Amino acid sequence: MKYIIVIEYNGTNYSGWQCQKNAPSVQAVLQEKLSILFAEKITIFGSGRTDSGVHALGQVAHFSAEKSYLPSKVQHAVNSMLPKDIRIVSATEAPEDFHAQYSAKRKTYLYKAYVSRTSSPIKEGFYAQIPSPVDIELMKKCAAELVGEHDFIAFSSTGSGINKTIRTLYRLDITTTGNEIFFEVEGNGFLYNMVRIIVGTLIFIGLGRIAPTAISEMLTTGNRKLGGKTYSACGLYLKSVEYPQN
Amino acid sequence: MKYIIVIEYNGTNYSGWQCQKNAPSVQAVLQEKLSILFAEKITIFGSGRTDSGVHALGQVAHFSAEKSYLPSKVQHAVNSMLPKDIRIVSATEAPEDFHAQYSAKRKTYLYKAYVSRTSSPIKEGFYAQIPSPVDIELMKKCAAELVGEHDFIAFSSTGSGINKTIRTLYRLDITTTGNEIFFEVEGNGFLYNMVRIIVGTLIFIGLGRIAPTAISEMLTTGNRKLGGKTYSACGLYLKSVEYPQN
Repeated sequence: MKYIIVIEYNGTNYSGWQCQKNAPSVQAVLQEKLSILFAEKITIFGSGRTDSGVHALGQVAHFSAEKSYLPSKVQHAVNSMLPKDIRIVSATEAPEDFHAQYSAKRKTYLYKAYVSRTSSPIKEGFYAQIPSPVDIELMKKCAAELVGEHDFIAFSSTGSGINKTIRTLYRLDITTTGNEIFFEVEGNGFLYNMVRIIVGTLIFIGLGRIAPTAISEMLTTGNRKLGGKTYSACGLYLKSVEYPQN
Repeated sequence: MKYIIVIEYNGTNYSGWQCQKNAPSVQAVLQEKLSILFAEKITIFGSGRTDSGVHALGQVAHFSAEKSYLPSKVQHAVNSMLPKDIRIVSATEAPEDFHAQYSAKRKTYLYKAYVSRTSSPIKEGFYAQIPSPVDIELMKKCAAELVGEHDFIAFSSTGSGINKTIRTLYRLDITTTGNEIFFEVEGNGFLYNMVRIIVGTLIFIGLGRIAPTAISEMLTTGNRKLGGKTYSACGLYLKSVEYPQN
């Protein structure tokens, strides 16, 4: 039987989603517990990688197992074995042709930041800090330029080895509550570090450290160096992955 | 010179605010760093204790030192020495007769909870979990009965050694966002575990595990056993301490 699991995790203590030698990963922990439950070696396939320190509210993965357990039983049995920083939030039976990565149509990322000269002990590890006030209205205006189909090569880390760098952003919303700023981005795919570079560039524009014209110049020239820094991993959450309705 | 400091801390890794033998406390860490800065033994006096795992957004403390440094310099110098889970968010010069505990007129606590059968890795340590849906409107109605001057002995942990148990609650607001529930309580003083017992009793009423009449019966009889459990420490935040305007 083939299963789909949706996973929430706190990425703080992991080297990321993907299995790595000599470093703890979310995938390896899940595979270990699933293998115990099914008494066979289980390999899971995620919708994509997340970096060290990046969190997930709704990472999606699939796996196949010889035994057929009720998906809700799998969820609760595995959750009882998992460390507190990883939880399966839902489990369902997958169609035979389902693939968590290749069937994915859209992804939504959330990025949390706050403006304060003093770092916040409560937000540490879960929000990125912006040390000075930013021009939110200007950031919203610039964010709108990124929505649509573009070549996002200037918004990806060098050496990512991806050839096709055209992606579509369906929305890039910036909202605020008190000193907190939330960026929510939905797109049909994301290049390596793309969300963190978009956020870093918008924040640098909001701080006045780079000109608002940087966005259009980056889209035209493909020059990563015109943007802001790759903002910290700890503010980033893979919120959800969308698949076609069956 | 006498200083007032406002402190934010993540209480997860501490036995609480107050110094204890063989257990790390927020007070001991702050005293250690302040003593290094001032090159003398500094003792700080907080507005009150917080238990192990309880957080603070605005704990207040005072201390005196022989040297007179600019308060903002004290703030930044000490912050650069502190672990990431404790920060001085402001420092000011104190009037000679100021005492963080005895001068305090009001305190505000925030309690964060969420409703979900599955525990949340992202909220772990910062929110209390409520495993089943609760009747929010009923909880709000019962919360209103607690506002005002009452003998809160039934809402305190036994053996707290406090004789005078009459306190005034100025407000007890319950708000929700998605599956999150926030309790905000402002009062002229709080007995040991009072907020956690109030929250636990309201949640038990919301879950239908005790009758809504429990609140008035507890206020009348002083019987702690009629209430809900002392809800977990990790959802509790000392939000602010109010002092008379000078």
